[in-house]
Amino acid sequence: MSLAATPTMQRMNDDRIRFADIAPAVQGGKYPVKRLLGERFAVSASIFRDGDEQLGAALRFMHESEKGYQHAPMKFVGDDGWQASFMLDQLGSYQYSIVAWTDDLATWQHALKARWEAGDRELLLEFQEGASLLRELTDRVPRGAARVPLIQAAMLIGDPSHPVEESILIALNPVLTEISNDFPDPAKMVATGQSFQVVVEPTRAGFAAWYQLFPRSQSLTPGKHGTLRDVLRRLPELRELGFDVLLLPPIHPIGLTNRKGKSPSSDTEPNDVGSPWAVGNWQGGHDAIEPSLGSIDDFRMLIGAAHAHHIDVALELTLHCSPDHPYVKECPHWFKQRADGSFAYAEQPPGVHSDVYVLDFDCNDWPSQWQEILRITQFWIAMGVNVFCIDSPHSSPVGMWDWLITQVKRKQPDVIFLANGMGKTAISHELARIGFSQCLSAYPMKSTKAELEAHVNEVSTGELAQYFRPHFFTNTPDYLPVHLEHGSKAAFAIRLILAASLSPLYGIYSGFEFYEGNAAQDGSRRYQPSEIYELVQRPNEVPGSLKPLIKLINQTRRAHPSLQRLDNVTFHATSNPQLICYSKMTEDHSDRFVIVVNLDPSKVQEGFVELQLEKLGLTPDRVFLIHDLLTNQTWSWKGARNYVRLDPETSSAHFCNVRVPVFKETGHVDLLEVKPVGVPPLGGERLAINS
Amino acid sequence: MSLAATPTMQRMNDDRIRFADIAPAVQGGKYPVKRLLGERFAVSASIFRDGDEQLGAALRFMHESEKGYQHAPMKFVGDDGWQASFMLDQLGSYQYSIVAWTDDLATWQHALKARWEAGDRELLLEFQEGASLLRELTDRVPRGAARVPLIQAAMLIGDPSHPVEESILIALNPVLTEISNDFPDPAKMVATGQSFQVVVEPTRAGFAAWYQLFPRSQSLTPGKHGTLRDVLRRLPELRELGFDVLLLPPIHPIGLTNRKGKSPSSDTEPNDVGSPWAVGNWQGGHDAIEPSLGSIDDFRMLIGAAHAHHIDVALELTLHCSPDHPYVKECPHWFKQRADGSFAYAEQPPGVHSDVYVLDFDCNDWPSQWQEILRITQFWIAMGVNVFCIDSPHSSPVGMWDWLITQVKRKQPDVIFLANGMGKTAISHELARIGFSQCLSAYPMKSTKAELEAHVNEVSTGELAQYFRPHFFTNTPDYLPVHLEHGSKAAFAIRLILAASLSPLYGIYSGFEFYEGNAAQDGSRRYQPSEIYELVQRPNEVPGSLKPLIKLINQTRRAHPSLQRLDNVTFHATSNPQLICYSKMTEDHSDRFVIVVNLDPSKVQEGFVELQLEKLGLTPDRVFLIHDLLTNQTWSWKGARNYVRLDPETSSAHFCNVRVPVFKETGHVDLLEVKPVGVPPLGGERLAINS
Repeated sequence: MSLAATPTMQRMNDDRIRFADIAPAVQGGKYPVKRLLGERFAVSASIFRDGDEQLGAALRFMHESEKGYQHAPMKFVGDDGWQASFMLDQLGSYQYSIVAWTDDLATWQHALKARWEAGDRELLLEFQEGASLLRELTDRVPRGAARVPLIQAAMLIGDPSHPVEESILIALNPVLTEISNDFPDPAKMVATGQSFQVVVEPTRAGFAAWYQLFPRSQSLTPGKHGTLRDVLRRLPELRELGFDVLLLPPIHPIGLTNRKGKSPSSDTEPNDVGSPWAVGNWQGGHDAIEPSLGSIDDFRMLIGAAHAHHIDVALELTLHCSPDHPYVKECPHWFKQRADGSFAYAEQPPGVHSDVYVLDFDCNDWPSQWQEILRITQFWIAMGVNVFCIDSPHSSPVGMWDWLITQVKRKQPDVIFLANGMGKTAISHELARIGFSQCLSAYPMKSTKAELEAHVNEVSTGELAQYFRPHFFTNTPDYLPVHLEHGSKAAFAIRLILAASLSPLYGIYSGFEFYEGNAAQDGSRRYQPSEIYELVQRPNEVPGSLKPLIKLINQTRRAHPSLQRLDNVTFHATSNPQLICYSKMTEDHSDRFVIVVNLDPSKVQEGFVELQLEKLGLTPDRVFLIHDLLTNQTWSWKGARNYVRLDPETSSAHFCNVRVPVFKETGHVDLLEVKPVGVPPLGGERLAINS
Repeated sequence: MSLAATPTMQRMNDDRIRFADIAPAVQGGKYPVKRLLGERFAVSASIFRDGDEQLGAALRFMHESEKGYQHAPMKFVGDDGWQASFMLDQLGSYQYSIVAWTDDLATWQHALKARWEAGDRELLLEFQEGASLLRELTDRVPRGAARVPLIQAAMLIGDPSHPVEESILIALNPVLTEISNDFPDPAKMVATGQSFQVVVEPTRAGFAAWYQLFPRSQSLTPGKHGTLRDVLRRLPELRELGFDVLLLPPIHPIGLTNRKGKSPSSDTEPNDVGSPWAVGNWQGGHDAIEPSLGSIDDFRMLIGAAHAHHIDVALELTLHCSPDHPYVKECPHWFKQRADGSFAYAEQPPGVHSDVYVLDFDCNDWPSQWQEILRITQFWIAMGVNVFCIDSPHSSPVGMWDWLITQVKRKQPDVIFLANGMGKTAISHELARIGFSQCLSAYPMKSTKAELEAHVNEVSTGELAQYFRPHFFTNTPDYLPVHLEHGSKAAFAIRLILAASLSPLYGIYSGFEFYEGNAAQDGSRRYQPSEIYELVQRPNEVPGSLKPLIKLINQTRRAHPSLQRLDNVTFHATSNPQLICYSKMTEDHSDRFVIVVNLDPSKVQEGFVELQLEKLGLTPDRVFLIHDLLTNQTWSWKGARNYVRLDPETSSAHFCNVRVPVFKETGHVDLLEVKPVGVPPLGGERLAINS
């Protein structure tokens, strides 16, 4: 009896070794995973086949700039699990996949060992079979040193007169297993059916503090239109405060037709400056700079000076066009025409008039639109911009962004794109999957403990954590959160501490440091006055501003690696709903924080926190010290349940580094030295230990 | 300016409407989801596009026996979510996918409504545009009644002299929206890139009580080899006890060469019956019946009688071949030859001799092996077997099972396959994904509360719950769980209640009802005596047996839909680690159970349970009644925290149906009548309410 295999049978028989649970992967490898430069990238998988055969496996990976795969041997970690890792030392994308094979020699050793340990001493046949496997292996090994032990072993165990006690030692020699694993039979190697991708971005794509300001408000002369040169003046201070990215609104010429007044629904008066989001007039469009802000050279100078201060400049890219934009004359077919031949304005909330047309991506000439948006982006990249804040990307085709980001990153893998707009859930996730480095978080809308915990848990766990980087802005020019309206200094401190310690990516919009919280009375959550429509000039400093706190927190974030990640956050139960408690820890336990915030800016709140000690690498029996970086006080805690009292008058939070005391032989308590790279000393060394 | 699109741009622009989070799906649709006949199958997805355009969507589905798709309109459920469902009224597999489209008329209505509500009354242009959309829609609608409202509406709102207050009512008429949704523009419809699959199996694939026995032990005459006709005699009792499936070990002729004695390591003595797993001798192989058990006709009669008792007969299929199996002579090339020309025995645990050869699936003639295994399976299907218990499927190629199950189910979609063997995790999951209806659970190895909770949580949640159906056997012929060794009746009752109430699929192996728990002293967890090697005859009944409890529990399972599912289990905290508490509830809250088990068979255990009331559809303020079906007592409970005391002398568990009393106008307490379909009355109506 001998039947031929159908194609289906043949295909199924070829899948003798199988792969599952390959992690990390987004939607089974359909989309890339995101990581930061310099991280070690760990891949795990289940690899299995029928029977008791022993397997070998390797992770193979290749940077997009390379031609051939590199291999990292995978380590068996029990059950069907395997692991390996490699360093992400280049920006851009890597492909990775897994190869596995059946290792006949290891299989033979495994069975032989079991027989030997069960007392079986009649192993002549086994040794003969092993000698034959060793000879097969020898043929696969290049001539040289590695062949010697194989040839010797085959000869000795193949000799029936050799004592069994000696043959078994030779047969089970792990050196043979290693050689076999290093030279698998190519005919027996199988690979995952697909390859996976990891996109490597600069550190700032995942860890940065942003500051947003309007250049036109930066003049120190009251009523005078600020310029890019005025922004230059602010760089040393922003660096001193610890900001990494300076976010600018659109800086292009602003339309005159339908220009808005001092609110989105009011008429223009003379001298009204208009919304920077209504791009374009006779002086130019998306590749021009509003002349009152300065010249292209001024912009280049700003970028250069910012980079010298280790600050990246992020430019907001909006696709809105004022009716005066050059496109309207040059490419009228790009805009939607109405039944009477007029152009359609952007839909606005009811009662708000519109000062812009929107591109109609359904027009036949859409490829030209895509190419033009790419040209603008590359124009500003050529000027030195390496961060783009995309205004409402949900309003343009997802495919366009996918194409554009791919085009840009092919040549400039260091460019970062922030999706600035709170669309619905699914489209936001899709924008992250197709390449946006960061997405604006709904953090400003989350006020209560339950809301904050649910939001952070959602974005920090599961598949989302592999590609979605939420950006926690405390406030934005068009959104004054309800908890900041008429807010006390405590309210602002609370929101700063939460954003900066929960999320590695956070930002503030200027005025926050002076706790500006005056809202328009139309329910729009707009600021009044609003910098979108008029100049809002501010002094350099105000007594009691939040700047010292901002500086301290940015320094602490930079010094402590546990605060530079999102996926390591754990929330702990508290006895008081106004107290929120969470911790962060590095994998090696060398850096850990416990943070407790009183969400009530107006009252003292007290209660117990119930720490999940195992999430902090702590045990119930040992004392640990918590050092509050805000007050420079240290307490010794023990066990899960600990008392906390937070008075907004003094400090709304405990922002505590955790250390475990080591009892030296002298009997004195000493602290484990925790010196993260580049840590600036925080205050003095005065550590008062209160019980 | 007019540029052509590259193929990449074109492809990305075509993905204007996108789909995500399609559920249920296994590995993004690579493997089918499993469901039971008669269930309603609900599908949800995120469907989204850029902009504010309104979408429409439909779920399309097709049974494998059909040629064209049916459509179920999807309902928008907020954010980007859509849902639809259809009835699974045929066995076999259904394909499903989703189509969506942009609805221009609904988009226009949506924008018009916003303008109207914002007070805008200058809508002439909008009405003109709407009239044009209505005319386009009219062209898509077949001639007939549905066209009339469209033509009328277009005419009226297109008339500039028509009053705006009347035009708006006509324009926003939901009848127009419905027609537009019913007749989408085919040019604008997009579908998910792939289709998904759901495999529909008989109810017993997911809900059944199994009983395993050895036919050869069933004679009532001491020392006499039992027959299939003896098994026939037991059917009425098994039906009375409430079992659905009768599992038989292999019933084929047993090899003589190397036949095992009364233990796996002892030599044969005359009259030793051998292990049924050593299949084959001169009398036949896998398609023959051991003559001392009876004939093929006896087997047919047994199957027929079992079906008449609504019992399915499950046959264990092992691929082991004794050295006397006909295959060894007919197809010696199917077996692995050793260096000396002998055949390789199956690897056994150290110290255990082997009585079987294993098929070498690496041989060149593997297609014949696959075809032969399919032939055997179909042979027994032709005899009336519709459940196969596959012995150690992990030892044969996964692809072979994939192919075999597909071949069988194409013609007999009612056949059920149980993967009987506890392999490693990944391969077990893969076997379930490629088509095994059920997989043996590691339940017999889970003793503590933490182990039980972790095991059940793993298999009842996430993607696993979509395809993996664990089978909770209390014990098997080759595994006497440590907690049953020398067990008291209480220990057996505990394990029965846990298995039968945690899992819709559970089974016992004969002897369990008489709490047999004598183990071999070699650490193998083998029974002593072991029915695998010798006859173990038992009386019909033993005073104090577990049969009344088994009957009660099987009746209760059948009467209560909440006990027929696995994915609805919730564990509740208890103050005593020996008390495990869990609940099950139907989606409509009409049937709910709270079960508390004292895991300690030897001592009274008491403590508090902390119910998650929301998981029971209860509120803290209302009293609810729990009716213990084991003792026929009823208590009134209120709130989350309730006291429990369980004495193994009386009952090791509270197995409680939950009811919410309704206060009628008379002021008396009455019970909500809960009458699940086919419920047999459990004891009397004596409901003593203790506080």
